[in-house]
Amino acid sequence: MDRRPIGVFDSGLGGLTAVRELTKRLPNESIIYFGDTGRVPYGPRGRDVIIKYASQDVNFLRTFDIKAILVACGTVSTTALDTLQQIYDMPLTGVVESASAKAARSTKNGRIGVIATSASIASGAYSRVIHTIDPSLTVIEKACPLFVPIVENGRFSKGDPLPELLVRDYLTELKALDVDTLVLGCTHYPLLWDVISDFMGEGVTLVSSGAEAAEYIAAELQEKDLLTDTKSAPNRYYVSDSTETFRKFASMYLQRDLDGDVEKVDIDKY
Amino acid sequence: MDRRPIGVFDSGLGGLTAVRELTKRLPNESIIYFGDTGRVPYGPRGRDVIIKYASQDVNFLRTFDIKAILVACGTVSTTALDTLQQIYDMPLTGVVESASAKAARSTKNGRIGVIATSASIASGAYSRVIHTIDPSLTVIEKACPLFVPIVENGRFSKGDPLPELLVRDYLTELKALDVDTLVLGCTHYPLLWDVISDFMGEGVTLVSSGAEAAEYIAAELQEKDLLTDTKSAPNRYYVSDSTETFRKFASMYLQRDLDGDVEKVDIDKY
Repeated sequence: MDRRPIGVFDSGLGGLTAVRELTKRLPNESIIYFGDTGRVPYGPRGRDVIIKYASQDVNFLRTFDIKAILVACGTVSTTALDTLQQIYDMPLTGVVESASAKAARSTKNGRIGVIATSASIASGAYSRVIHTIDPSLTVIEKACPLFVPIVENGRFSKGDPLPELLVRDYLTELKALDVDTLVLGCTHYPLLWDVISDFMGEGVTLVSSGAEAAEYIAAELQEKDLLTDTKSAPNRYYVSDSTETFRKFASMYLQRDLDGDVEKVDIDKY
Repeated sequence: MDRRPIGVFDSGLGGLTAVRELTKRLPNESIIYFGDTGRVPYGPRGRDVIIKYASQDVNFLRTFDIKAILVACGTVSTTALDTLQQIYDMPLTGVVESASAKAARSTKNGRIGVIATSASIASGAYSRVIHTIDPSLTVIEKACPLFVPIVENGRFSKGDPLPELLVRDYLTELKALDVDTLVLGCTHYPLLWDVISDFMGEGVTLVSSGAEAAEYIAAELQEKDLLTDTKSAPNRYYVSDSTETFRKFASMYLQRDLDGDVEKVDIDKY
């Protein structure tokens, strides 16, 4: 048994979709969340900058006595995780491995689509991991750089012509290539689930990278007997920009009321 | 005569539209440009964060021996300029005053529209300045938070349904309210000029805040005899993220080839 909290971080609010999944599976665990809202988005940035920001995020979370970190940011998971794992001597779980494994299990026709930020797609990480699992699978990757901005602006609902136009723009090719499984490789994308699912059609299984990573870390902690049996501290949320903006939008991602205090952090000090 | 360069900064690449206008008017002046591409966009961020970032931008430019700074960022101009002017003992010109003056001179029916980032609109700066010039004018302000991301992703051309949809979304109300003058209060927006102009129609005068500020600073330096008669050093460009990305896109904003070296800066050290 280990009563210490789990650290979770993301470039902004997207990682809260993973917190939602984590809390569903492990309601007793305390979570310390950091959202780098003062520097979001990470997806269009260069590798050096992403590594620098992600290191500061981890350094901040490590000021708490945490037992593990969930890297709930697709961009950091694809671009900086190996570097972070070399630097830090603690369990750091990204979203690529578990989502890739789920996609490889799910596909029937052997054609998997992956959508993510520009940096994630440029890294080739999903394709690499899926091919390590099964080299015979076809992986088609597509960067969707405007999904994060529209989601952050609340424009993700069915019936809104903006997300419908962009989903059509970005996904028409994947649909034509007949993928039967689509990995949502960025933790912002689950908010677009309905629009994407409608466009791709019933035959296509969507895989949420945040949900799969939450599932994985839950199993991992259970196996190592590192779970707690009772919630010993409330969740705590930290951001690098306005706490009011975070409070206003967090419940949209969590699909429930925000359940902890929010504080602002000067992240470039870490 | 003053041969020192002029400093120009923006959250990212938008400020290059002001550099373009400045160079047109003052071809002999050397320019030191800083684009905070590692932390762009500024528009959705809180005031504290914008002031912090803008101070670091000015601190960096002041490591050069410059004679003046053009704040070629609408968000900083509306949100942080008064604070910066209190801190620094040097000429700092933003984009609000000159664009407001131009709009007040241009309007015939007394109805002016202003479009800008969320932070700029929240500040009420344009409305305040225009009403100082002429309290009888009607000013209608509208935040267009997705214009910067679509421009940064190259989606600003006529015939592209995405900018056309967003221009319609954001500007329908302003059009219905019969403004005859529209201030583009963010230096990214001139790239959307054709789409906006087509939608608003021939009777509406567009005012580019970057161009007006360039005009203003040129007149100001001339009046104080601070111009140079010969270009003594090439322009220099600095960014806080990948220099390659900057090189790739800069000419789109400048409407000419990039005319100087580009270097990366660790901006949070300033």
